[in-house]
Amino acid sequence: MQELIIGIDIGGSKILSGIVNREGRILARKKEATPLNCSAGEMLDGITVTVKELMQELGAGWQDILGVAVGAPGPLDYFNGIIKDPPNLGWREFPLREELSKRLGKQLLLDNDANMAALGEMRFGRSKDCTHLIYMTVSTGIGGGIIIDGNVYRGKDGGAGELGRMRILAEHGPGGSERARNLEDLASGTALAHEAQEIIKQGRGQGISTLCPEGKIITAREIGAAARGGDLDAREMIERAGYFLGMAIANLVNIFNPERIILGGGAGLGLQDFLLQPIQNAVHQWVAPSLKHNLKIEFSTLGEDIGLLGCAAAILQEFESTYNK
Amino acid sequence: MQELIIGIDIGGSKILSGIVNREGRILARKKEATPLNCSAGEMLDGITVTVKELMQELGAGWQDILGVAVGAPGPLDYFNGIIKDPPNLGWREFPLREELSKRLGKQLLLDNDANMAALGEMRFGRSKDCTHLIYMTVSTGIGGGIIIDGNVYRGKDGGAGELGRMRILAEHGPGGSERARNLEDLASGTALAHEAQEIIKQGRGQGISTLCPEGKIITAREIGAAARGGDLDAREMIERAGYFLGMAIANLVNIFNPERIILGGGAGLGLQDFLLQPIQNAVHQWVAPSLKHNLKIEFSTLGEDIGLLGCAAAILQEFESTYNK
Repeated sequence: MQELIIGIDIGGSKILSGIVNREGRILARKKEATPLNCSAGEMLDGITVTVKELMQELGAGWQDILGVAVGAPGPLDYFNGIIKDPPNLGWREFPLREELSKRLGKQLLLDNDANMAALGEMRFGRSKDCTHLIYMTVSTGIGGGIIIDGNVYRGKDGGAGELGRMRILAEHGPGGSERARNLEDLASGTALAHEAQEIIKQGRGQGISTLCPEGKIITAREIGAAARGGDLDAREMIERAGYFLGMAIANLVNIFNPERIILGGGAGLGLQDFLLQPIQNAVHQWVAPSLKHNLKIEFSTLGEDIGLLGCAAAILQEFESTYNK
Repeated sequence: MQELIIGIDIGGSKILSGIVNREGRILARKKEATPLNCSAGEMLDGITVTVKELMQELGAGWQDILGVAVGAPGPLDYFNGIIKDPPNLGWREFPLREELSKRLGKQLLLDNDANMAALGEMRFGRSKDCTHLIYMTVSTGIGGGIIIDGNVYRGKDGGAGELGRMRILAEHGPGGSERARNLEDLASGTALAHEAQEIIKQGRGQGISTLCPEGKIITAREIGAAARGGDLDAREMIERAGYFLGMAIANLVNIFNPERIILGGGAGLGLQDFLLQPIQNAVHQWVAPSLKHNLKIEFSTLGEDIGLLGCAAAILQEFESTYNK
């Protein structure tokens, strides 16, 4: 009894719901497209149906459930369970924790997806022994989850970890002015897609334009495939993103002195063969020598389940801390 | 009894020793030039003499002393009490805590000067009610002390807070290469002095060159005075440093969600009339809206005593945490 955890990972394009045991085995799961033209309430009605289906599939009742956790795109108000301004979803400032809790008849835990992923990585990934780690997701956007002494670091008001906002480039503009750009605009999947469109307009990036004929949306996947197929423009673009990710990661290491940096997210994982080298170069060049000894930089191996496993990890951590009090 | 704390603030150019009471009043103090051509042991012999003189001055014995704390330039190994590679001092990897402790016949606490300053600011400065603050010192170098939940954040191995190493500018170099520069090289007192020399060579910075005739060393003080006297080159240089400090501070706020950023250090305090505006602009532009609500950015008002007061704060914090266990 109480051996199971319900996890719900709400993303901008998909919702992944599942039931996970204490060892991190996913016993049931369902992936659905995020409904884009409905209210938050309607979305939660759908999630409620899915959760009940999954429980039925396993023949599980509420007496078997240790807890329910939801990961959702930030920014969100962890302390009050409110989703603030999720990208792609057509609503904002919604009390998701309370509303879903009402529908399920069960308390639940809501946190942002990057924090969940960081917890999942620490409990079920390759970072099991780590107490100080930073998870960085490189996806349509760039987000982060910071673990200090084994716990999510939230800052004074719960808003810490906005890693995609890190300004790292000051470009010289007209009249000697400078323009600082942030990491998300320089190295996210969205940034790469924009850049690919630009270079195609200039007649470059042949490999990408072949994979994406007129009208087909360019994503990190096609850019990576083009680079692997020999498109040097595509390759250079990805390595440049790696250079900026490396700058940001070196900065984080100098600030936090962590044991582990874990990279995830669709674009990050999909392009890791090109990203790792420039990131390692940056860390090698710019991190204080004494902070490099015990540092590892790795890509997550948990794949698209990281959010779901993170939900399980969050519930287990909460349970253990209550139990040990 | 045990009402007094001995603080020793070792800097690259001066050593400030003092006796402080629990309320942060400095009852006795002595400022000496840092001896530059002697061994670490000889320096500690000198400090031992000074400490005894100060105690004598107050008629205090060891029974009156709650603790002894030393602040020193990083990088240092807090856990083992070792100074690693202090700038200006001609020795390295020295077990300062143990060696001074032997001489005084008293256990002591050693931490880096920026951490001490952060603690001093939190207990005796304008940040008394704060639990999440970042102290940034802008001096010959740039360093930082990070306070999380009222305690110094040290990272996994005690090396956190290397704020001066933050890379924030990627410049285009020859052959399309890029060169990333760090905050210390862009905005420290040393960086400003170098830049002043450069612009004087180019026949600009009239105000600075008037204040620093051939042979006189240029410091942030002269650059500030020139700017106040109407030297636009000097002013622009300082404001540009402020722009970069602002980038770094906005990054730290997005990462940490602190309540307070406190700036100190000789160059920082001396140029605050020009630095505050560009720093505030950067934060206004680049920090996530929800993180700006409870945020204050201020210059320390503790002056050159901040390190000494920090020593007192560190001892009081240690005493209270032991007492409350």
